[in-house]
Amino acid sequence: MIILGIDPGLAIVGWGVIDCQRGRFKTLGYGSIMTPAGMRTEERLAKIYHDLNAIIDHFHPAEMAVEELFFTNNITTGIRVAEARGIVLLCGEQKGVRIAEYTPMQVKQAVVGYGKAEKRQVIAMVTSLLKLPAPPKPDDTADALAIAICHGHSGGSRLAQYYNH
Amino acid sequence: MIILGIDPGLAIVGWGVIDCQRGRFKTLGYGSIMTPAGMRTEERLAKIYHDLNAIIDHFHPAEMAVEELFFTNNITTGIRVAEARGIVLLCGEQKGVRIAEYTPMQVKQAVVGYGKAEKRQVIAMVTSLLKLPAPPKPDDTADALAIAICHGHSGGSRLAQYYNH
Repeated sequence: MIILGIDPGLAIVGWGVIDCQRGRFKTLGYGSIMTPAGMRTEERLAKIYHDLNAIIDHFHPAEMAVEELFFTNNITTGIRVAEARGIVLLCGEQKGVRIAEYTPMQVKQAVVGYGKAEKRQVIAMVTSLLKLPAPPKPDDTADALAIAICHGHSGGSRLAQYYNH
Repeated sequence: MIILGIDPGLAIVGWGVIDCQRGRFKTLGYGSIMTPAGMRTEERLAKIYHDLNAIIDHFHPAEMAVEELFFTNNITTGIRVAEARGIVLLCGEQKGVRIAEYTPMQVKQAVVGYGKAEKRQVIAMVTSLLKLPAPPKPDDTADALAIAICHGHSGGSRLAQYYNH
Protein backbone atom coordinates (compact mmCIF):
# COMPACT_ATOMS: atom_id res chain seq x y z
CA MET A 1 0.00 0.00 0.00
CA ILE A 2 1.37 3.39 -0.97
CA ILE A 3 1.13 5.92 1.85
CA LEU A 4 1.63 9.68 1.59
CA GLY A 5 2.66 11.28 4.88
CA ILE A 6 2.10 15.01 5.30
CA ASP A 7 3.43 17.47 7.86
CA PRO A 8 1.23 20.50 7.13
CA GLY A 9 2.30 24.14 7.26
CA LEU A 10 1.95 27.38 5.34
CA ALA A 11 5.67 28.06 4.79
CA ILE A 12 6.66 24.38 4.47
CA VAL A 13 4.55 21.31 3.75
CA GLY A 14 6.71 18.24 4.35
CA TRP A 15 5.78 15.17 2.32
CA GLY A 16 7.01 11.61 2.09
CA VAL A 17 5.77 8.61 0.13
CA ILE A 18 6.47 5.03 1.16
CA ASP A 19 5.26 1.66 -0.05
CA CYS A 20 4.35 -0.52 2.91
CA GLN A 21 4.14 -4.27 2.28
CA ARG A 22 3.77 -6.61 5.28
CA GLY A 23 5.56 -4.23 7.62
CA ARG A 24 8.41 -3.59 5.16
CA PHE A 25 8.92 -0.09 3.83
CA LYS A 26 10.21 1.11 0.51
CA THR A 27 10.79 4.84 0.08
CA LEU A 28 9.33 6.20 -3.13
CA GLY A 29 9.97 9.90 -2.68
CA TYR A 30 10.11 12.77 -0.24
CA GLY A 31 10.56 16.50 -0.12
CA SER A 32 8.81 19.69 0.85
CA ILE A 33 6.56 22.28 -0.73
CA MET A 34 7.93 25.69 0.22
CA THR A 35 6.07 28.98 -0.18
CA PRO A 36 7.90 32.31 0.11
CA ALA A 37 6.99 34.57 3.02
CA GLY A 38 6.54 37.47 0.58
CA MET A 39 3.61 35.78 -1.16
CA ARG A 40 0.06 36.59 -0.14
CA THR A 41 -1.49 33.89 2.07
CA GLU A 42 -4.02 32.91 -0.59
CA GLU A 43 -1.27 32.59 -3.21
CA ARG A 44 0.68 30.34 -0.87
CA LEU A 45 -2.40 28.18 -0.33
CA ALA A 46 -2.91 27.94 -4.10
CA LYS A 47 0.71 26.86 -4.55
CA ILE A 48 0.27 24.15 -1.93
CA TYR A 49 -2.91 22.98 -3.69
CA HIS A 50 -1.16 22.86 -7.06
CA ASP A 51 2.04 21.16 -5.92
CA LEU A 52 0.33 18.61 -3.68
CA ASN A 53 -2.01 17.61 -6.50
CA ALA A 54 1.06 17.05 -8.70
CA ILE A 55 2.61 14.82 -6.01
CA ILE A 56 -0.59 12.77 -5.67
CA ASP A 57 -0.85 12.43 -9.46
CA HIS A 58 2.75 11.21 -9.60
CA PHE A 59 2.72 8.65 -6.79
CA HIS A 60 -0.96 7.61 -6.66
CA PRO A 61 -1.05 6.97 -2.90
CA ALA A 62 -3.95 4.88 -1.60
CA GLU A 63 -3.91 6.59 1.78
CA MET A 64 -2.70 9.82 3.27
CA ALA A 65 -1.61 10.32 6.88
CA VAL A 66 -1.65 13.89 8.19
CA GLU A 67 -0.33 15.25 11.45
CA GLU A 68 -2.95 16.58 13.81
CA LEU A 69 -2.60 20.15 15.04
CA PHE A 70 -2.10 21.33 18.55
CA PHE A 71 -1.93 25.03 19.24
CA THR A 72 0.28 25.65 22.17
CA ASN A 73 2.60 28.51 21.30
CA ASN A 74 1.51 30.94 18.63
CA ILE A 75 -2.20 31.04 17.83
CA THR A 76 -1.76 33.26 14.76
CA THR A 77 0.77 30.87 13.25
CA GLY A 78 -1.54 28.03 14.22
CA ILE A 79 -4.41 29.54 12.24
CA ARG A 80 -2.22 29.75 9.14
CA VAL A 81 -1.09 26.14 9.59
CA ALA A 82 -4.72 25.03 9.93
CA GLU A 83 -5.68 26.94 6.77
CA ALA A 84 -2.90 25.10 4.91
CA ARG A 85 -4.01 21.83 6.48
CA GLY A 86 -7.50 22.41 5.06
CA ILE A 87 -5.94 22.55 1.58
CA VAL A 88 -4.12 19.25 2.23
CA LEU A 89 -7.37 17.53 3.27
CA LEU A 90 -9.16 18.98 0.24
CA CYS A 91 -6.51 17.63 -2.16
CA GLY A 92 -6.76 14.15 -0.64
CA GLU A 93 -10.55 14.13 -0.81
CA GLN A 94 -10.70 15.40 -4.39
CA LYS A 95 -8.20 12.73 -5.50
CA GLY A 96 -10.00 9.92 -3.67
CA VAL A 97 -7.19 9.30 -1.17
CA ARG A 98 -8.32 8.05 2.23
CA ILE A 99 -7.12 10.28 5.05
CA ALA A 100 -5.99 9.37 8.56
CA GLU A 101 -4.67 11.67 11.24
CA TYR A 102 -2.18 11.10 14.03
CA THR A 103 -1.03 13.18 16.96
CA PRO A 104 2.69 13.98 17.26
CA MET A 105 2.77 11.65 20.26
CA GLN A 106 1.33 8.74 18.26
CA VAL A 107 3.94 9.34 15.54
CA LYS A 108 6.83 9.36 18.04
CA GLN A 109 5.47 6.26 19.74
CA ALA A 110 5.23 4.42 16.41
CA VAL A 111 8.63 5.46 15.09
CA VAL A 112 10.83 5.66 18.18
CA GLY A 113 8.77 3.60 20.62
CA TYR A 114 8.47 6.50 23.02
CA GLY A 115 5.76 9.17 22.76
CA LYS A 116 7.95 11.92 24.15
CA ALA A 117 10.97 11.22 21.96
CA GLU A 118 13.06 14.16 20.80
CA LYS A 119 13.00 15.41 17.24
CA ARG A 120 16.57 14.19 16.54
CA GLN A 121 15.60 10.69 17.65
CA VAL A 122 12.65 10.69 15.23
CA ILE A 123 14.88 11.86 12.38
CA ALA A 124 17.51 9.21 13.19
CA MET A 125 14.91 6.43 13.25
CA VAL A 126 13.32 7.58 9.99
CA THR A 127 16.75 7.63 8.33
CA SER A 128 17.54 4.16 9.67
CA LEU A 129 14.14 2.50 9.05
CA LEU A 130 14.00 3.76 5.45
CA LYS A 131 17.75 3.18 4.85
CA LEU A 132 18.16 6.74 3.61
CA PRO A 133 21.64 7.94 2.62
CA ALA A 134 21.29 11.00 4.88
CA PRO A 135 18.73 12.52 7.24
CA PRO A 136 15.98 14.17 5.17
CA LYS A 137 15.99 17.96 5.15
CA PRO A 138 14.23 20.07 6.27
CA ASP A 139 12.85 18.49 9.47
CA ASP A 140 9.34 18.82 8.04
CA THR A 141 10.24 16.24 5.39
CA ALA A 142 11.56 13.82 8.02
CA ASP A 143 8.37 14.39 10.04
CA ALA A 144 6.24 13.61 6.99
CA LEU A 145 8.07 10.31 6.48
CA ALA A 146 7.63 9.55 10.20
CA ILE A 147 3.88 10.11 9.85
CA ALA A 148 3.78 7.76 6.84
CA ILE A 149 5.70 5.10 8.82
CA CYS A 150 3.29 5.57 11.74
CA HIS A 151 0.35 4.92 9.42
CA GLY A 152 2.09 1.87 7.96
CA HIS A 153 2.78 0.50 11.44
CA SER A 154 -0.81 0.96 12.49
CA GLY A 155 -1.90 -1.29 9.64
CA GLY A 156 -3.10 1.48 7.40
CA SER A 157 -6.81 1.61 6.87
CA ARG A 158 -7.54 -1.27 9.26
CA LEU A 159 -6.50 0.46 12.43
CA ALA A 160 -6.07 4.11 11.63
CA GLN A 161 -8.17 6.73 13.31
CA TYR A 162 -10.07 8.28 10.48
CA TYR A 163 -11.74 11.59 10.67
CA ASN A 164 -15.35 11.33 11.54
CA HIS A 165 -15.85 14.56 13.37
CA MET B 1 -18.06 46.99 -7.32
CA ILE B 2 -19.43 43.58 -6.46
CA ILE B 3 -18.31 42.37 -3.04
CA LEU B 4 -18.65 38.85 -1.65
CA GLY B 5 -18.65 38.75 2.15
CA ILE B 6 -17.79 35.45 3.84
CA ASP B 7 -18.23 34.29 7.43
CA PRO B 8 -16.15 31.10 7.39
CA GLY B 9 -16.91 27.89 9.24
CA LEU B 10 -16.92 24.14 8.76
CA ALA B 11 -20.60 23.51 9.53
CA ILE B 12 -21.84 26.81 8.06
CA VAL B 13 -20.19 29.21 5.64
CA GLY B 14 -22.29 32.39 5.55
CA TRP B 15 -22.11 34.34 2.28
CA GLY B 16 -23.56 37.59 1.00
CA VAL B 17 -23.08 39.49 -2.25
CA ILE B 18 -23.66 43.22 -2.56
CA ASP B 19 -23.02 45.76 -5.27
CA CYS B 20 -21.48 48.88 -3.80
CA GLN B 21 -21.66 52.06 -5.89
CA ARG B 22 -20.63 55.35 -4.26
CA GLY B 23 -21.61 54.21 -0.79
CA ARG B 24 -24.97 52.81 -1.94
CA PHE B 25 -25.61 49.12 -1.57
CA LYS B 26 -27.66 46.77 -3.68
CA THR B 27 -28.12 43.23 -2.42
CA LEU B 28 -27.51 40.62 -5.10
CA GLY B 29 -27.81 37.44 -3.06
CA TYR B 30 -27.09 35.78 0.27
CA GLY B 31 -27.29 32.43 1.98
CA SER B 32 -25.17 29.79 3.62
CA ILE B 33 -23.30 26.66 2.65
CA MET B 34 -24.14 23.98 5.19
CA THR B 35 -22.28 20.73 5.64
CA PRO B 36 -23.76 17.90 7.71
CA ALA B 37 -21.98 16.92 10.93
CA GLY B 38 -22.03 13.26 9.81
CA MET B 39 -19.81 13.97 6.81
CA ARG B 40 -16.06 13.41 7.08
CA THR B 41 -14.13 16.67 7.52
CA GLU B 42 -12.47 16.39 4.12
CA GLU B 43 -15.84 15.79 2.44
CA ARG B 44 -17.21 18.89 4.12
CA LEU B 45 -14.23 20.92 2.91
CA ALA B 46 -14.76 19.61 -0.64
CA LYS B 47 -18.44 20.63 -0.49
CA ILE B 48 -17.46 24.14 0.63
CA TYR B 49 -14.95 24.32 -2.23
CA HIS B 50 -17.55 23.20 -4.77
CA ASP B 51 -20.40 25.38 -3.58
CA LEU B 52 -18.30 28.52 -3.09
CA ASN B 53 -16.87 28.19 -6.59
CA ALA B 54 -20.44 27.99 -7.91
CA ILE B 55 -21.35 31.19 -6.01
CA ILE B 56 -18.29 33.02 -7.39
CA ASP B 57 -19.09 31.83 -10.92
CA HIS B 58 -22.65 33.09 -10.55
CA PHE B 59 -22.01 36.55 -9.10
CA HIS B 60 -18.50 37.33 -10.40
CA PRO B 61 -17.44 39.41 -7.38
CA ALA B 62 -14.41 41.66 -7.87
CA GLU B 63 -13.46 41.44 -4.21
CA MET B 64 -14.02 39.13 -1.29
CA ALA B 65 -14.06 40.15 2.37
CA VAL B 66 -13.47 37.40 4.92
CA GLU B 67 -13.78 37.54 8.67
CA GLU B 68 -10.55 37.11 10.56
CA LEU B 69 -10.35 34.35 13.15
CA PHE B 70 -9.83 34.69 16.83
CA PHE B 71 -9.61 31.58 18.95
CA THR B 72 -10.87 32.31 22.37
CA ASN B 73 -13.18 29.48 23.33
CA ASN B 74 -12.73 26.13 21.67
CA ILE B 75 -9.35 25.50 20.03
CA THR B 76 -10.49 22.28 18.34
CA THR B 77 -13.46 24.01 16.73
CA GLY B 78 -11.12 26.87 15.85
CA ILE B 79 -8.81 24.53 13.93
CA ARG B 80 -11.76 23.24 11.89
CA VAL B 81 -12.92 26.79 11.16
CA ALA B 82 -9.40 27.72 10.03
CA GLU B 83 -9.25 24.67 7.77
CA ALA B 84 -12.51 25.78 6.15
CA ARG B 85 -11.20 29.34 5.92
CA GLY B 86 -8.20 28.04 3.98
CA ILE B 87 -10.63 26.63 1.40
CA VAL B 88 -12.40 30.00 1.15
CA LEU B 89 -9.10 31.82 0.51
CA LEU B 90 -8.10 29.18 -2.07
CA CYS B 91 -11.37 29.62 -3.99
CA GLY B 92 -10.91 33.39 -4.11
CA GLU B 93 -7.32 33.14 -5.28
CA GLN B 94 -8.08 30.55 -7.97
CA LYS B 95 -10.93 32.70 -9.32
CA GLY B 96 -8.87 35.89 -9.33
CA VAL B 97 -10.93 37.61 -6.62
CA ARG B 98 -8.99 40.03 -4.43
CA ILE B 99 -9.26 39.17 -0.75
CA ALA B 100 -9.45 41.46 2.28
CA GLU B 101 -9.87 40.49 5.90
CA TYR B 102 -11.54 42.24 8.80
CA THR B 103 -11.72 41.57 12.49
CA PRO B 104 -15.17 41.16 14.09
CA MET B 105 -14.56 44.49 15.83
CA GLN B 106 -13.91 46.28 12.52
CA VAL B 107 -17.11 44.81 11.09
CA LYS B 108 -19.20 45.95 14.07
CA GLN B 109 -17.61 49.39 13.96
CA ALA B 110 -18.39 49.74 10.25
CA VAL B 111 -21.97 48.46 10.41
CA VAL B 112 -23.23 49.65 13.81
CA GLY B 113 -20.69 52.37 14.55
CA TYR B 114 -19.60 50.64 17.74
CA GLY B 115 -16.91 47.93 17.84
CA LYS B 116 -18.47 46.08 20.74
CA ALA B 117 -22.00 46.04 19.36
CA GLU B 118 -24.17 43.01 20.08
CA LYS B 119 -24.99 40.45 17.44
CA ARG B 120 -28.68 41.49 17.31
CA GLN B 121 -27.66 45.09 16.62
CA VAL B 122 -25.49 43.96 13.72
CA ILE B 123 -28.34 41.89 12.29
CA ALA B 124 -30.79 44.78 12.66
CA MET B 125 -28.43 47.21 10.91
CA VAL B 126 -27.73 44.78 8.05
CA THR B 127 -31.46 44.27 7.56
CA SER B 128 -32.06 48.02 7.57
CA LEU B 129 -29.07 49.10 5.43
CA LEU B 130 -29.82 46.51 2.75
CA LYS B 131 -33.60 47.01 3.00
CA LEU B 132 -34.15 43.28 3.42
CA PRO B 133 -37.69 41.99 3.98
CA ALA B 134 -36.57 40.07 7.08
CA PRO B 135 -33.39 39.46 9.10
CA PRO B 136 -31.20 36.97 7.16
CA LYS B 137 -30.99 33.51 8.65
CA PRO B 138 -28.87 31.92 10.01
CA ASP B 139 -26.78 34.54 11.80
CA ASP B 140 -23.77 33.47 9.72
CA THR B 141 -25.50 34.84 6.63
CA ALA B 142 -26.21 38.17 8.33
CA ASP B 143 -22.56 38.26 9.45
CA ALA B 144 -21.38 37.65 5.89
CA LEU B 145 -23.48 40.58 4.65
CA ALA B 146 -22.09 42.72 7.48
CA ILE B 147 -18.54 41.86 6.37
CA ALA B 148 -19.39 42.81 2.78
CA ILE B 149 -20.85 46.15 3.99
CA CYS B 150 -17.73 46.74 6.08
CA HIS B 151 -15.57 46.24 2.99
CA GLY B 152 -17.78 48.56 0.97
CA HIS B 153 -17.62 51.22 3.67
CA SER B 154 -13.86 51.03 3.81
CA GLY B 155 -13.70 51.93 0.15
CA GLY B 156 -13.02 48.43 -1.07
CA SER B 157 -9.59 47.88 -2.44
CA ARG B 158 -8.39 51.39 -1.66
CA LEU B 159 -8.44 51.11 2.08
CA ALA B 160 -8.87 47.47 2.93
CA GLN B 161 -6.25 45.63 4.87
CA TYR B 162 -5.10 42.98 2.47
CA TYR B 163 -3.26 39.90 3.49
CA ASN B 164 0.42 40.35 3.21
CA HIS B 165 1.61 38.02 5.94
